[in-house]
Amino acid sequence: MNYSADDHRYMQRALRLAAAATRRAAPNPGVGCVLVRDGAVIGEGATLQVGGDHAEIQAIKDCLARGLSPRGATAYVTLEPCSHHGRTPPCARRLIDEGVARVAAAMVDPYHEVAGRGLAMLRAAGVDSDAGLMEAEARQVHRGFLSRVERGRPWVTLKTAATLDGKTALLNGRSQWITGPEARRDVHRLRAEHCAVLTGSGTVLADDPQLTVREVPCERQPLRVVLDSALRTAPEQRIYQDGATLLATCDHPEARLRPYRAGADILTLPRQADGHADLPALLAALAQRGVNMLMVEAGAGLNGAMLRAGLVDEIVLYLAPSLAGDAARGLFAWPPLEDLADKQRLSIRDARMVGADLRLSLTPAPLSPR
Amino acid sequence: MNYSADDHRYMQRALRLAAAATRRAAPNPGVGCVLVRDGAVIGEGATLQVGGDHAEIQAIKDCLARGLSPRGATAYVTLEPCSHHGRTPPCARRLIDEGVARVAAAMVDPYHEVAGRGLAMLRAAGVDSDAGLMEAEARQVHRGFLSRVERGRPWVTLKTAATLDGKTALLNGRSQWITGPEARRDVHRLRAEHCAVLTGSGTVLADDPQLTVREVPCERQPLRVVLDSALRTAPEQRIYQDGATLLATCDHPEARLRPYRAGADILTLPRQADGHADLPALLAALAQRGVNMLMVEAGAGLNGAMLRAGLVDEIVLYLAPSLAGDAARGLFAWPPLEDLADKQRLSIRDARMVGADLRLSLTPAPLSPR
Repeated sequence: MNYSADDHRYMQRALRLAAAATRRAAPNPGVGCVLVRDGAVIGEGATLQVGGDHAEIQAIKDCLARGLSPRGATAYVTLEPCSHHGRTPPCARRLIDEGVARVAAAMVDPYHEVAGRGLAMLRAAGVDSDAGLMEAEARQVHRGFLSRVERGRPWVTLKTAATLDGKTALLNGRSQWITGPEARRDVHRLRAEHCAVLTGSGTVLADDPQLTVREVPCERQPLRVVLDSALRTAPEQRIYQDGATLLATCDHPEARLRPYRAGADILTLPRQADGHADLPALLAALAQRGVNMLMVEAGAGLNGAMLRAGLVDEIVLYLAPSLAGDAARGLFAWPPLEDLADKQRLSIRDARMVGADLRLSLTPAPLSPR
Repeated sequence: MNYSADDHRYMQRALRLAAAATRRAAPNPGVGCVLVRDGAVIGEGATLQVGGDHAEIQAIKDCLARGLSPRGATAYVTLEPCSHHGRTPPCARRLIDEGVARVAAAMVDPYHEVAGRGLAMLRAAGVDSDAGLMEAEARQVHRGFLSRVERGRPWVTLKTAATLDGKTALLNGRSQWITGPEARRDVHRLRAEHCAVLTGSGTVLADDPQLTVREVPCERQPLRVVLDSALRTAPEQRIYQDGATLLATCDHPEARLRPYRAGADILTLPRQADGHADLPALLAALAQRGVNMLMVEAGAGLNGAMLRAGLVDEIVLYLAPSLAGDAARGLFAWPPLEDLADKQRLSIRDARMVGADLRLSLTPAPLSPR
């Protein structure tokens, strides 16, 4: 397909609508839709929360509310319109019924109930339909949903903060206030974009964090997930109060688990050969619970294990303008490397100042086979 | 004084000439001078190497070479014209003799033989003379000379490179190739701007570096300084070959020192109470040898000691896009902190990409008194 500059402009608008709807719509994809006729936008919309309208229906309703008709229009949608009766009727059917002339989708929906059937239904009804307009950008916006559907695990963002020499805390455990207020607010904004936040028992014991979104508006608090295979945390800790928490642990007698049940759902994970809880099993269970986007806020142990297992999709690293010296705690723990070729390679996607701190967005490279 | 926009523009031009002459002129200040009459630049120049012309004389010669006369001109100079016979006659005298009408200096020369006498000589001869135009910028350009004259020690830039988790080498000592080729070339450019490069015995033993400028043009190699109080390095190492090296050590019998004399001058330093060589004494000795700008390229031990002693004026930190994990060597060694308030605070003056690496320019904050 050759797409015009106008095609890109309208899809860009649909992608912005999609990005803003992603958290609200989860576990559904937060899709954006823009209806255009004769060079004018005549309606637009994005997916509502689960059970509510999909983007196409919102855009059609917006068009009708303006006193216009979608007949003969082009619909720009960031994901293929659905073809199945889920909680809502199929969007492809509605687009046909409204007389839409053309559907430009950014990408095919990989969800097994759609997977090309939406576009096929549209084409069979004579609607000029295709996918591929700004697909890379759409894959980025829908990365959480795509990861869950295509890989069976959430998209994982690891957030951490350190001094410029890579230290998160002192040897005596003191760790608060490494970064400034602007960076902390930025972390809350990041949390608000995620379906769930994962931490480890060490962080809960050391910092007793709430891991809620407090410093920015938030309609839907993320699920809090504590990985505590040995049940070292206490049921009285703040993370088990006031909100949804999932305690991921290994097999324990019910008598030991019972005190946690008032404050958390309990997920039992198998152990790996090394005795630690099985991390891929944890991610699979979170995906089954509809977690598209997972944020990891943990200590060096869980950070290192997630990264070395190849389970981290991106890292957001805040570097505070200070140095703590070698005798302090680091960011990522794993066994000593024998060769610098074994180091974890990254690419720096973005670097910017947030207050007095530096915020880096990093993508881990696949681990090199040895 | 109220300075005009033109005054600032011409002084900016003189400051650029000064910056380019700084390394060549050391230990003298690399001054810039611009002669202006009737809104036109009629001559400009900068300080030559020691024993050669100062900036004012170069600017006057440039003016005369254009077939013009400096009579009635304004001279913009980044430092007060000299008033004393050193290796060259006084510049203030020459400006008077050439009939220059006005001298706008960025700052008074703190050197004890000048210290306001140049401006006084000019004023006594009827030349409209003052100092203060863009003084802050001039102090930055002349920071090496000013540090040596005002503080009796060089301006110290500490350069280091690490992974994003603050690691410089593996526990087994392997350390090469942390950053990419662009960052390494940038380091050579930085070295070429410095009068001397300081390293420690650990770095010489681990890496056997040359510490010469090789990847960019260099008229004048920096003096190499090895701090090796216990004489752990070997006279056969590369830093003692092919070039000027100063071995800074503590008191040893001549028989132990003799093997080093073929490859290095020897500087004997007192020991501090903790048994380490006295760092302020080292810097004072380097200043006495005419070192304006010192670059430190060392390991965690010397880096940490210099920083904790308050002897570092700026840090250039290259961060490579990789992670080595906690079981690797860090950037700055000092005893464990009890309180995060004791951390070394910095300000981030500049952050930019150099190839795939991130280059940070940092200024240490004064250590808080406790």
